Amino acid sequence: MAKHAIKNGALILEEEALVPITSREVQQNFSVYEALRIIDNKVVHLRDHYKRLQGSASTIGLKLNMSYEELENSLKLLLEADNLTDATVRIVVYGGKLDTVFITWENLLTYPDSYYTEGIKVITYEGERFLPTCKTSNLLLNYLAREKASESGAFEALLIDRFNRVLEGTRSNFYAIKDNVLFTAPDELVLSGVTRISVLQAAEELGLTIVYEAVEASTLYDYDEVFISSTSMAAMPICEIDGKQVRKEHPITLKIKEMVRELETV
Amino acid sequence: MAKHAIKNGALILEEEALVPITSREVQQNFSVYEALRIIDNKVVHLRDHYKRLQGSASTIGLKLNMSYEELENSLKLLLEADNLTDATVRIVVYGGKLDTVFITWENLLTYPDSYYTEGIKVITYEGERFLPTCKTSNLLLNYLAREKASESGAFEALLIDRFNRVLEGTRSNFYAIKDNVLFTAPDELVLSGVTRISVLQAAEELGLTIVYEAVEASTLYDYDEVFISSTSMAAMPICEIDGKQVRKEHPITLKIKEMVRELETV
Repeated sequence: MAKHAIKNGALILEEEALVPITSREVQQNFSVYEALRIIDNKVVHLRDHYKRLQGSASTIGLKLNMSYEELENSLKLLLEADNLTDATVRIVVYGGKLDTVFITWENLLTYPDSYYTEGIKVITYEGERFLPTCKTSNLLLNYLAREKASESGAFEALLIDRFNRVLEGTRSNFYAIKDNVLFTAPDELVLSGVTRISVLQAAEELGLTIVYEAVEASTLYDYDEVFISSTSMAAMPICEIDGKQVRKEHPITLKIKEMVRELETV
Repeated sequence: MAKHAIKNGALILEEEALVPITSREVQQNFSVYEALRIIDNKVVHLRDHYKRLQGSASTIGLKLNMSYEELENSLKLLLEADNLTDATVRIVVYGGKLDTVFITWENLLTYPDSYYTEGIKVITYEGERFLPTCKTSNLLLNYLAREKASESGAFEALLIDRFNRVLEGTRSNFYAIKDNVLFTAPDELVLSGVTRISVLQAAEELGLTIVYEAVEASTLYDYDEVFISSTSMAAMPICEIDGKQVRKEHPITLKIKEMVRELETV
């Protein structure tokens, strides 16, 4: 069956989801995006994703010519055309003269159970995202850091800033727990993850104190639990950093993960 | 007449120079590029551009699957197909799974004489390029800075780093002259401009002392002459920075400009 996509509200074949390389907006990444989950025919946290898309667009002066209702309708059109009940959906908006909104989908991004029960390996990578609060397509740093992680057999790279602080992963937010205190970088330094909202809500419900302070890279091995979060991962525990093991048990992370998934169905 | 382009060595219609937005290399700008000039049927400094393309690719671990001879042949094919004698040509290479080399062209980029006789207006803009020595497509900073410049009626934006140093323009290198000393940022902090090589050669021939030191933004108005260089501009004098005038005369810059253009015909 032919796979479809949406271009400016209209159904197209996915193979037609193309952009011209002669466009300055393509050449210079004047674009913002979102990735979201469809579970059981329901788009998870659509309002939050739309709001963040608006925020990203506004930060770089990109005019978003798509209302929330248009986004809803587009998603409905795509889901029906390809008979989707579960999927990972990507919205990408090119601004300026190109002024195009695309929506594409792929199979729901899921991970082996072992990623949660045993934890994942990560590396650290020096680099700061440009406009960190904002989900733009200016992602070469993320690409390179993730390639480096893959080469090292790791799942994710944690980005370390010029002050040797751990801010976030290439596609995830980062957290560290010690004595019932959860540390995470302040909002203005990192992507305001949609799942991050749920993680923090869950942590509060569990009675953790939240401290908005980025963790020093040199102290990474001193915490009770360290984990990352994202739309597709929920909360995922880390078992190894730069080849060195961290604590094996991560009961709070797994509890948070369950609570994050529950919040998706609300 | 239909306009053509090159894709992996083969002639295509320009309208077919498209990339899929579902490709990770497109989504995350895993690509490098070059812009060069065709003058009187001759490709200017092709060896230098190819060498820089190789350098950019190598820096980000992108495998460049095009030899110098293949590039020469591709350019020949394109020039013949569209009967071009003068043009600005863009080579863009997407790496990873996409692994595609495109060559497109537009009319030769030229500027009014007044840009040289009177000089151009620029603004300063805080921001550091990621991997500055390398010509990648990770250009959102450049896009935003240039938009800001346009809004201010300026032609270019000078990028100011965290130490308040003027490193380069969004699409140009930067120089300041005082008492026959030419200051420019050290190679490792800026794009190794192909035209920069000619500028520095010309400056030496004119007996200037070259100091590889970035100028402090606060001292910008203290120089005898300030100018920028690029493939399309050669050397272009600056007459105004952030709305404030700098010295009106720029004899050395104009001499350098002539010499740079002469070097193109060698």
